[in-house]
Amino acid sequence: MSDEATYDLVVIGGGPAGYAGAIRAGQLGKKVACVEMERAGGTCLNWGCIPSKALLKSAELYRSIQHADDFGFTVGDVKVDFPKVVERSRGVANQMAKGIEFLFKKNKVEYIKGRAQVNVPGLVEVTEGEDKGKILSTKNILIATGCRARMLPDLKPDGKRIMTAREILDRRDLPKSCVVLGAGAIGMEFAYFLNAFGCEVTVLEMLPNVLPVEDEEVSKFVEKSFKKQGIKVMTGTKAENIKVTKTGVKLDTVKGDKTEAIEAESLLVAIGVTANLEGLLSKKVKLEMDRKYIKVDPHYRTSVKGIYAAGDIIGPPWLAHVATYEAVQAVNGMFGHGEPRPMERFPGCTYCQPQVASIGLTERDVKEKGIAHKVGKFPFTASGKAVAAMESDGFVKLIVSEPHGEILGAHITGHEATELIAEYALGMELEATWEEIHGTIHAHPTLSEALMEAAAATHGEAIHI
Amino acid sequence: MSDEATYDLVVIGGGPAGYAGAIRAGQLGKKVACVEMERAGGTCLNWGCIPSKALLKSAELYRSIQHADDFGFTVGDVKVDFPKVVERSRGVANQMAKGIEFLFKKNKVEYIKGRAQVNVPGLVEVTEGEDKGKILSTKNILIATGCRARMLPDLKPDGKRIMTAREILDRRDLPKSCVVLGAGAIGMEFAYFLNAFGCEVTVLEMLPNVLPVEDEEVSKFVEKSFKKQGIKVMTGTKAENIKVTKTGVKLDTVKGDKTEAIEAESLLVAIGVTANLEGLLSKKVKLEMDRKYIKVDPHYRTSVKGIYAAGDIIGPPWLAHVATYEAVQAVNGMFGHGEPRPMERFPGCTYCQPQVASIGLTERDVKEKGIAHKVGKFPFTASGKAVAAMESDGFVKLIVSEPHGEILGAHITGHEATELIAEYALGMELEATWEEIHGTIHAHPTLSEALMEAAAATHGEAIHI
Repeated sequence: MSDEATYDLVVIGGGPAGYAGAIRAGQLGKKVACVEMERAGGTCLNWGCIPSKALLKSAELYRSIQHADDFGFTVGDVKVDFPKVVERSRGVANQMAKGIEFLFKKNKVEYIKGRAQVNVPGLVEVTEGEDKGKILSTKNILIATGCRARMLPDLKPDGKRIMTAREILDRRDLPKSCVVLGAGAIGMEFAYFLNAFGCEVTVLEMLPNVLPVEDEEVSKFVEKSFKKQGIKVMTGTKAENIKVTKTGVKLDTVKGDKTEAIEAESLLVAIGVTANLEGLLSKKVKLEMDRKYIKVDPHYRTSVKGIYAAGDIIGPPWLAHVATYEAVQAVNGMFGHGEPRPMERFPGCTYCQPQVASIGLTERDVKEKGIAHKVGKFPFTASGKAVAAMESDGFVKLIVSEPHGEILGAHITGHEATELIAEYALGMELEATWEEIHGTIHAHPTLSEALMEAAAATHGEAIHI
Repeated sequence: MSDEATYDLVVIGGGPAGYAGAIRAGQLGKKVACVEMERAGGTCLNWGCIPSKALLKSAELYRSIQHADDFGFTVGDVKVDFPKVVERSRGVANQMAKGIEFLFKKNKVEYIKGRAQVNVPGLVEVTEGEDKGKILSTKNILIATGCRARMLPDLKPDGKRIMTAREILDRRDLPKSCVVLGAGAIGMEFAYFLNAFGCEVTVLEMLPNVLPVEDEEVSKFVEKSFKKQGIKVMTGTKAENIKVTKTGVKLDTVKGDKTEAIEAESLLVAIGVTANLEGLLSKKVKLEMDRKYIKVDPHYRTSVKGIYAAGDIIGPPWLAHVATYEAVQAVNGMFGHGEPRPMERFPGCTYCQPQVASIGLTERDVKEKGIAHKVGKFPFTASGKAVAAMESDGFVKLIVSEPHGEILGAHITGHEATELIAEYALGMELEATWEEIHGTIHAHPTLSEALMEAAAATHGEAIHI
């Protein structure tokens, strides 16, 4: 091996951070390799965001079909071919993963299937896969190995009785009953999905509200809607004594001093993630850590020169879009393409129905911080488009600063909330005031008008409420 | 009658301009009356935007159900109760109109059902309805009588053979075949709707492209999609010799020197609008006109002091959201609540499938004007969310200035295009550059990411193409 580095960049991990960083380096004309032990696209594309959205779309359509008579149709017997629902989702993941592999080729990213270890700065060793033993000499390393679902001690996913998102995404039969442990985005999405197809679902959440990071008003709204849909929701409740039986799981739900034993065919564990660090660094490489995550500076540089990290592996919020952003910034920075920008704000989305999307501070946050503010709300029941589409559940809530009127936080629950949040995200990026949002002509009739009306409502100027 | 004006404002017309202006005046604590000859909400709410969206939603769901097997369902015989489809749409219109009536009460707007005439500045006479003969003395008058569908000379809508949007919205049976005259937004929406339920549709458009105001690339895309859906589209084609027969209509389509006779059960005339001016002004009131529309200054003042006008009656673009904006600005201005803003830019939407939404200049516009620019495009086939939802037809096209990178025009066709455009509209309002849109973290997976990628694509930085 010569002293000259073979690569400008070796990326470890091919998920939303890794593939995006690798492609960006390719765009900049750099010689880049991306080592991924499973499939290009990572968890998000293969075992997360993308296939779950395919399942959710099927669930939404299934529920719409059940209400077809409201729209003027009668449908004969509706039968669900559940394996086909799951197959479609796997097909979508496969198609998108192929897309990433195509983009690798297009951008001249060398795609190495395997595991990798940082031997020393500048040297990456392939430790598993066809290229096992290969040493990659590189000027820069980007660690983007991400996270995986956290499991409870003593439990092991078997795909039937104990599952994480990964197992359920590949399961071809619908459990009759399922306890969902954790009411974060993943737990809530699968709870909606399973319930929509007829599984008896119980959601357990330790914290006082479902979707605990969301504005409390939104959480309460979604909880109410879930209950109306037939989902049992138990908040402020712990699961104890989880036992795997021959046919399912048993556990105790503990709320205060009240304990109740429940049983179900399956338990979906959706209690967060854990960093993929195993085998990543040789003993010669010590990176400074922040709790269990790799610590980086605002340029995504680790404590060791030439080694960068981005995405879930540098810690929360564990979101694909944040990971992609960070990796692109890191790569721009390492190759002198502008000053990398730290991640300052990001939207968060949950794709159950009603959907939830938000950015910035909650009402509780601003109150706790003592920030002068005004709140504007607009319900979708007052939106002509929402009523016409029979999708009028939900509302938009906007929190703006006083006296300047800039967006502090925005919270949307309802139809297409996850698309609508983009406007407020851009608004925050540009430091838009409520008056600028109110003063922007929004097409009629659209749900997006509700964002304009919520801005107007912060100062009593909404027309339709 | 005393010299003192009874009202601060009398609004003539209760559509998107009129009701919004009246409500806004009520918010400002003014004594206001709104005279509307039909139903609060005007054409938009009763005979336009809102009921058509209900019909389109039914059409979309019907088509989804026909493709249910792609999603993993079998649905047996699907039967359409067409009268019920229309009834739902009428119900939605009725519900929203009641909403406006409620808002009138809430904001202390006096709602007078009738026609009105401006006698002299400061005096409005009710000329039809229960209050016929009543004279309203007022400091300000806002004319917001809007427009109605334009009809061809010698033709009269009978609701069966000859229709405008108004008649078709109230028609309880589906014609077997229909010629749609005019491929603007209204024509295209009904063409999609009728075709979706099995009517044999021919669209005739005199200009070279459907949706002639849209970017040509978008128009071509939609035309292709319509043809794939089984709609016959004839552009650059005139209709001549239209004859109403006992059972339908006959006409000649003329393209260049080629003439073809066609027949259909119905003809939908969607060739634009004409101003509602009849009986509006007494002989003592002469307002300066701009062609057939009332001329106003940037404060929405007509040539006569104390008389304002807003909405369709002041001319194109004849869009509900523009009308509302103008009326609110006019009212703010007349009561000293800030400087009224002229309407500078507005999104335009068409709700057929694929949807179309745009704002600003087309590519042809910028070329003709010789503006230095760059174009970025992103296809929904590269969007994980679109693929997961099986809604990957369409693209986002963004045109930005050089060298500053501000948005000159944005064009979207595809799923939820009409919602997505709001982000670009806000971007234009705030003079956002492509870099600011690209630098805004967009939630993954969403269709809105395509707007970020199109911005990135203007400078070769899109990750997913």
